[in-house]
Amino acid sequence: MAKIITLITDFRTNDGYMGAVYGVIKSIAPDVEIMTISHSIPPEDIRKGSRALKNSYQFFPDGTIHLVVVDPTVGPHRRGLIVYDGEFYFVGPDNGVFTTVYNRTADCQCFKITNDKYRLSSQTETFHGRDVFAPTAAYLASGIPPEEFGLQIDDPVMLKDPEPEMIGTELIGKIVDIDTFGNLVTNIPAIMVKQNSQILVCGHIIKELLKSYAEVPQKQPLAYIGSIGNLEIAINQGNAANFFGALIFDEVKILDVYPDSE
Amino acid sequence: MAKIITLITDFRTNDGYMGAVYGVIKSIAPDVEIMTISHSIPPEDIRKGSRALKNSYQFFPDGTIHLVVVDPTVGPHRRGLIVYDGEFYFVGPDNGVFTTVYNRTADCQCFKITNDKYRLSSQTETFHGRDVFAPTAAYLASGIPPEEFGLQIDDPVMLKDPEPEMIGTELIGKIVDIDTFGNLVTNIPAIMVKQNSQILVCGHIIKELLKSYAEVPQKQPLAYIGSIGNLEIAINQGNAANFFGALIFDEVKILDVYPDSE
Amino acid sequence: MAKIITLITDFRTNDGYMGAVYGVIKSIAPDVEIMTISHSIPPEDIRKGSRALKNSYQFFPDGTIHLVVVDPTVGPHRRGLIVYDGEFYFVGPDNGVFTTVYNRTADCQCFKITNDKYRLSSQTETFHGRDVFAPTAAYLASGIPPEEFGLQIDDPVMLKDPEPEMIGTELIGKIVDIDTFGNLVTNIPAIMVKQNSQILVCGHIIKELLKSYAEVPQKQPLAYIGSIGNLEIAINQGNAANFFGALIFDEVKILDVYPDSE
Repeated sequence: MAKIITLITDFRTNDGYMGAVYGVIKSIAPDVEIMTISHSIPPEDIRKGSRALKNSYQFFPDGTIHLVVVDPTVGPHRRGLIVYDGEFYFVGPDNGVFTTVYNRTADCQCFKITNDKYRLSSQTETFHGRDVFAPTAAYLASGIPPEEFGLQIDDPVMLKDPEPEMIGTELIGKIVDIDTFGNLVTNIPAIMVKQNSQILVCGHIIKELLKSYAEVPQKQPLAYIGSIGNLEIAINQGNAANFFGALIFDEVKILDVYPDSE
Repeated sequence: MAKIITLITDFRTNDGYMGAVYGVIKSIAPDVEIMTISHSIPPEDIRKGSRALKNSYQFFPDGTIHLVVVDPTVGPHRRGLIVYDGEFYFVGPDNGVFTTVYNRTADCQCFKITNDKYRLSSQTETFHGRDVFAPTAAYLASGIPPEEFGLQIDDPVMLKDPEPEMIGTELIGKIVDIDTFGNLVTNIPAIMVKQNSQILVCGHIIKELLKSYAEVPQKQPLAYIGSIGNLEIAINQGNAANFFGALIFDEVKILDVYPDSE
Repeated sequence: MAKIITLITDFRTNDGYMGAVYGVIKSIAPDVEIMTISHSIPPEDIRKGSRALKNSYQFFPDGTIHLVVVDPTVGPHRRGLIVYDGEFYFVGPDNGVFTTVYNRTADCQCFKITNDKYRLSSQTETFHGRDVFAPTAAYLASGIPPEEFGLQIDDPVMLKDPEPEMIGTELIGKIVDIDTFGNLVTNIPAIMVKQNSQILVCGHIIKELLKSYAEVPQKQPLAYIGSIGNLEIAINQGNAANFFGALIFDEVKILDVYPDSE
């Protein structure tokens, strides 16, 4: 069973840059299996890179190394990190892209990558994906322990994810992701939503929580608990973002929250 | 030699959803080799998913498992299938996406996926790609026989592909696919076209069947038998769909069909 | 350690054509590892295919086979080639796409692919990627030596890359690539640029050579030596092509070149 390195980047594929990353990894760790989760994160969109990671990383076998290169502040002053959550390794820039990992596992270990021994000798300061992070992931896969790469730190950069708020009997949440199908992913966890909750999104009220798109007629909206356990809004065989004119961070309200009395 | 699972989906890669599918497969069947044929099928376009499958599946080694997730009617009522054509396994929704397989092999076996034992325990009704089809493909690859997943059925959903019609001495066909280069793929099989057939497409007549693009000057149209054995129309170093303003299901006529007298 | 075949093509993935290429390779050489560098080269853009190759091929392990299918002149008269530079094998059309390889290694060996034994029997003249180049790469990976495929030739097609020119004390270079981030890659090698060179690009003067984007404020331009060793122009967290309205082959001047006096 080969060790797996996954890749999430915003590099697209037209330039061959990611080919260089593959080559560097396979030259150091020939038996590693590289699996590309995405090369199409919107350019420099750390939040979206973090979401792609959130939607995928837990499903891989233990010991998988997740390499994330969405890196708008690449350079000698932006720290590079190895993060270990007890199950998976993560390698990439210290810019908040691993927030979803810290949120799920309180006691992650973070190591600052500083040891020149595990970098390409031709290192640039504009392409750490190839020159620093790819060799780091490959050497990790080869069995070099994370503490060999640099000292442990305890202040990794974190993104502030908006939290839902209770105001009176209303829960005010937000759309935190719009996926490729136009589905609206909220920050409202399943536990806050009842079967008959009234949900207000962009001026429309949805009156029930359903389980599958097909429970409403074609082109009609529905609310359901999505594949990562939060409230989502979709259109059966349609695009909810277009239907509602919804944007990231628009409010979604639950109008009648009495979780205790359920 | 590792077992191969191929993937054809409309999920794109931005959200990390397909990463979850990779992870689920590798967690169940670590030695499987996953090969992505496409994650860029137009959203919910079953016909296009079926064509991508048609253009590729026969070229893989015997025993390859083709996982196709283009699934606009995902939910508890849409059946999930394992199809076996004697050579390859196919896993995906019962919505017609395997029509090309049934058309080529008359006696396919179809099994309805119902056994909860081979699903993710956290199953949702919105992401069967991850929760049902990925584990099914992985357990199949691990040697679980298809009848373990559910009962055989004999009424899989099929798309109606338009058939070419003879009217007098004319054969009336249709454009059934427009590929990424703008080439027009028709439903007219090679056997119905002669070397000197007159071919009418969008008001233009093409007078000869050629073998390669370079046989006409740059930016000129030509007709030829395409890589899957049907009549195609292209522009040498150009885009025939744009040139002709052609759309899916536009007519293509052969004006002088006398196949018997050839 | 599996033999690696990389792929650079302009086929996109919607049609399943590249799936056919994967299948052909794995059917001939089951143990080969296929790594897709790009399927998104702009259609028929040989120059961009050559650049994606330049940015990636040297980073792979020795013996890697690089398959490049950007092939606007596919047909019986366009030669197919195996190129060997002493380290890597290259397979694809003889249309200049390997120029970057010939430029780096003077004594490449080029073999014209003619032996029918190593093609698909169903060969078309429109899809050599599947019918000729995929089997060639797979048989090469299986140990068939390149001279088995056809005779050596010494006149492969080469693209003329514009060279920078000295006029007085000015060096006149050109933008030879615009990458996915909008960074401007020039044909001016590092050795021609000093720390305090004045660089003229699209009417703007940049006065210093820096090492990383973060050395200028956000949205400000900078010049630096890029990841393949040439002068590049970028915008910190922005898109230089849009900022400058720059196009491929626009001039970039170094105003004060006295390399000898440095």
